[in-house]
Amino acid sequence: MPKELPIFTPPKPTPIFEKIGIVGLGLIGGSIALKSRELWPSSLVVAVDNKDVLETAMRMHAIDVAADDLIVLAEVDLVILAAPVKQNVALLAELDDHVRTPAVVTDVGSTKREIVDAARALPPRFTFVGGHPLAGAARGGLENARPDLFAGRPWLLTRSAETVPQQKLESFVRALGAEPKVVGVDAHDRLLAFLSHLPQLTASALMEVVGEAVGADGLSLAGRGLADTTRLAASPADIWRDIVATNADQIGAALDLLIERLQELRKDLPNGERLTEVFDAAAAWRNQISR
Amino acid sequence: MPKELPIFTPPKPTPIFEKIGIVGLGLIGGSIALKSRELWPSSLVVAVDNKDVLETAMRMHAIDVAADDLIVLAEVDLVILAAPVKQNVALLAELDDHVRTPAVVTDVGSTKREIVDAARALPPRFTFVGGHPLAGAARGGLENARPDLFAGRPWLLTRSAETVPQQKLESFVRALGAEPKVVGVDAHDRLLAFLSHLPQLTASALMEVVGEAVGADGLSLAGRGLADTTRLAASPADIWRDIVATNADQIGAALDLLIERLQELRKDLPNGERLTEVFDAAAAWRNQISR
Repeated sequence: MPKELPIFTPPKPTPIFEKIGIVGLGLIGGSIALKSRELWPSSLVVAVDNKDVLETAMRMHAIDVAADDLIVLAEVDLVILAAPVKQNVALLAELDDHVRTPAVVTDVGSTKREIVDAARALPPRFTFVGGHPLAGAARGGLENARPDLFAGRPWLLTRSAETVPQQKLESFVRALGAEPKVVGVDAHDRLLAFLSHLPQLTASALMEVVGEAVGADGLSLAGRGLADTTRLAASPADIWRDIVATNADQIGAALDLLIERLQELRKDLPNGERLTEVFDAAAAWRNQISR
Repeated sequence: MPKELPIFTPPKPTPIFEKIGIVGLGLIGGSIALKSRELWPSSLVVAVDNKDVLETAMRMHAIDVAADDLIVLAEVDLVILAAPVKQNVALLAELDDHVRTPAVVTDVGSTKREIVDAARALPPRFTFVGGHPLAGAARGGLENARPDLFAGRPWLLTRSAETVPQQKLESFVRALGAEPKVVGVDAHDRLLAFLSHLPQLTASALMEVVGEAVGADGLSLAGRGLADTTRLAASPADIWRDIVATNADQIGAALDLLIERLQELRKDLPNGERLTEVFDAAAAWRNQISR
């Protein structure tokens, strides 16, 4: 009789954080929770949101511990603020009262200057590293969360003075499938004003103007061009009010450039020289975006 | 020995036109050619374009007769002008010298006022009905043409005084898979200014501004939002210069509305009241577009 062969068990990856606290279970917070549970069965995923959301999260097996109060965060070693931007800023001030242990604190918001400023007031047992996963989906909300949301996507991080927490957070987001990339705080907010905030405002303004002008009958004739150009306009106003308010100067500068360009095209419609220049440059840039 | 059973041959649909002349084999002209050959093997598809394009069309089995001269159109009973808008207008003036038979003349351009005006000068053996298939693809050109391009898509037609040619053309575009829809000439140009021309200018202006501001390194971080919003910006300038020049007043009015809305958002960035109004209205309109 042959000797029994040992059964191969793949080693469980060592958890990077023991207790992961996530405040706000939307598309991003929910996807972090799902992927963390998949990667590190021995880590605890602790979530704070309202009762309805927590029930959904429990049904999705996305979290281990749920509460509608920050008190559950007492012993976490990673805090992820995943609420809208201004709520994240407000939450920072409450951490000292609730999180009793040293912890890395990060966020996932679309602007960084305001929260990095506010984080300077945190007590020294916390290290704040701002974060921003550049991952999204056509629809937001926990119900659209999925563990592979971050696969291959950049995850921008600000630089803290503390090397070890910084490296731990980089390892964490890399484990989630993302590619961590450290950027300056000001550079982040300027870059995102152009890559994300300006396209969002443009898509929403365009959709509102077109809808009001042609109505439902006219829209019934819309083709893929209008559909693509206005896809972002389905985004809810509440998240965007916070983003825009905390990056108003950079978004304003970006909007000024777009308004100026549209005015130039406007003046030159019958002639089309400026149109040719802008279209040629735009086509060249567009071909550098893969999808 | 059993009697031989008759072999069932599906009846060939009666051709609506005997000789179909197509001037300009791009995405639209090429797709009309492919579908016509598929539907009516007994009709002749006669095409005019430059030699390179005609060779490609022959290789694709898209056409029966090819020439780089309008002389081949002598006996067609349908002329489809599928070149850029201003070329179509110029071609109208040449038809009298080349097309010897009575014919229905149509076009597929994105503006209708200028060509419908010009068509009034056609001799009475021609009936002009302006046409505009609302069908497209991410990439233009004959190589992207396909017989099902028009399936289920609207095909706008202007109204001529002649009932029979009008009905024949409606049957023709319905046979191609499209849904014919008769619209007024002015209404067409205003509608398309909002549904197509404004989104195109916006996408190109946005892409140019964002590309110049963040460069190739910045664009490497772009997500699906920017990609969708700027997809139209890959369109070539030459087609658009004609469209914009022949609809400058309506596009100008539409651009003014968009610029005004962007200026309102600009003024209200830190507060966000106008932003909420515009985003809420935009989201409601966007949900009426299916894809």
